[in-house]
Amino acid sequence: MSKVFLIGAGPGDPELLTVKAYRLLQRADVILHDGLISSEVLALAPTSAVVVNVGKRCGNRSIAQEDINALMVAFASSEQIVVRLKSGDPTLFGRAAEEIEALSAAHVEYEIVPGVTAALAAAAEAGISLTDRRWCSHVVFTTGHHCSGKERPDWRGIVRPDTTVAIYMPGNDYQALARELTLAGLAPDTPCVLISQIGSPDRRFCRSTLDRVMDLPPVPTPALFLAGRAVGNWRESSLNDERDPVAQAAH
Amino acid sequence: MSKVFLIGAGPGDPELLTVKAYRLLQRADVILHDGLISSEVLALAPTSAVVVNVGKRCGNRSIAQEDINALMVAFASSEQIVVRLKSGDPTLFGRAAEEIEALSAAHVEYEIVPGVTAALAAAAEAGISLTDRRWCSHVVFTTGHHCSGKERPDWRGIVRPDTTVAIYMPGNDYQALARELTLAGLAPDTPCVLISQIGSPDRRFCRSTLDRVMDLPPVPTPALFLAGRAVGNWRESSLNDERDPVAQAAH
Repeated sequence: MSKVFLIGAGPGDPELLTVKAYRLLQRADVILHDGLISSEVLALAPTSAVVVNVGKRCGNRSIAQEDINALMVAFASSEQIVVRLKSGDPTLFGRAAEEIEALSAAHVEYEIVPGVTAALAAAAEAGISLTDRRWCSHVVFTTGHHCSGKERPDWRGIVRPDTTVAIYMPGNDYQALARELTLAGLAPDTPCVLISQIGSPDRRFCRSTLDRVMDLPPVPTPALFLAGRAVGNWRESSLNDERDPVAQAAH
Repeated sequence: MSKVFLIGAGPGDPELLTVKAYRLLQRADVILHDGLISSEVLALAPTSAVVVNVGKRCGNRSIAQEDINALMVAFASSEQIVVRLKSGDPTLFGRAAEEIEALSAAHVEYEIVPGVTAALAAAAEAGISLTDRRWCSHVVFTTGHHCSGKERPDWRGIVRPDTTVAIYMPGNDYQALARELTLAGLAPDTPCVLISQIGSPDRRFCRSTLDRVMDLPPVPTPALFLAGRAVGNWRESSLNDERDPVAQAAH
C-alpha cells in the first residue's frame, strides 16, 4: 500500500528534523523536494531513492504546481513511500492545501508530518521568546511574498502594537515592509530582526527598529523578518552582524 | 561547563520530538518539565536523571515561576545538562521570556531547542493546511488563557475574515470564544475545529462553525481551537467525533 507523506523538513539542520521525518527519509522510495531543502537533509535518503527537486521560484514556471501534484499521484501508483518534502512545516505557506486536494481527488492516501517552522527556529537561535505574558500573547505568521502582478500584502487589521509579527519571504525592500507594518499598527521604534539562512552554518541575524530598516544589508535568502516588542529582548551573544564578514556580502 | 537547554517537547508523541531534543533528553542530568509532558517522552531520560514536574495550573501557586527560575539556576551550578522541557515549542506561550531573563541575570549559559507547536501538529493530524495562497496567507497564534482576575482576551484588530486563528488553551466556554472571534472579525459561519489531547492516542477532533459551537462537547485538556476558512477544508478520514466513544466523556 503506497502513501504520500507531506513532510516538514524544518529549518535545514538535520538535527531539527522530527524523529519521524528522519526515519521516513531513510526509508523513502521517492523524494519530491522544494528548492530550499539542505543537502544535509537530502543526504539521509537511501541511494536507491528517486530524488527530484521540484522547487519553484516566483515567476519561474518551469515546474507548475499542477505538475508537482501529478508527479505525486503518479509515483504513488508505483512506489510505496513517496515523500513530498517541504522546508519548515508543511501547513504554513507550503501550498499543502492544493496538494492535499489533488491527492484526495486521486484517492491517494496521505499523511502530514509536521515540522519546526522557520520563525520558531529563528527565535530559538536568537535566544528570544515570541510571546511574553507580560505584554504580548499573540503572534502573526504571514508572508511578504508577492509575485509580479500580485498586490502588496495588506497587514491592516491583523497587527496591533502588542503583536509579534513573523514575515516569511520578506523580500529585500525593507523600507516598504516597515512602512506597511507601521501603517498596520506597529510603532516606528518597534524592534525587528532580519534572519538569513536560518538552520545553516551561514545563518546570520541583523537587528534594527522599523524606523531604521534602511540600514539593513541585503542578505542571502531564505530570509525571515521578525518584529515586535518581544523581539527586542534578545541576547547579545547571538548577535553576529558586527563580527561576521559574510554580513557585508550582498546577495 | 553546564548549560540549560530550553527544549520543545512537541505535542507529546516522542516521534515528533526533534532529533536534537531526543538526543539531549537521553543525556540529561536534570529535567524540569511542564505538567503536560507525556510519559513516553519522559521515558527517554536516563534512570540516573533527576526529573522534576514543575507544572503549574491556573490559580495553583504551589510552584511559582520564580521557583522554577531558581531551580534552573541552582541545578546549572552542579549538573552539566539541565533540561527545561516545555510542551510544543518553548518560544510560544511558554514563559520562556522570564526564564531567559533569569538565566541571563545569573550568567548561566542556555540554548533553546525549537519544537513542533500544537497548532501545526493538529493541522497535520486533521489533514489540513493552515494557509492557502488562494485566500489565506496569515495565521494568528494566540491564547484564550485567563486566570481569575484577568481580563478576557481581546482579539479585535488581529483577526479578519481571511485569518486562520489558532487558540491555545481555549477553555470550555466555546460560546464566549465564538462571540469574541465574531466580534473580532470572523464570519459566523466560519469553520472551526476543537482538538483535544493532540499527539496522544486519545486525541480527538470536533468540528463545527462559530455559530454552532454550543453543540461542541467539553473535552479533556490540553485542547486547541482552530478557526478560519482554511480549517473547513479537512478530510473526512480524520474525523473521529462520530465513532469515538471517548467523545461523550466530559472532563
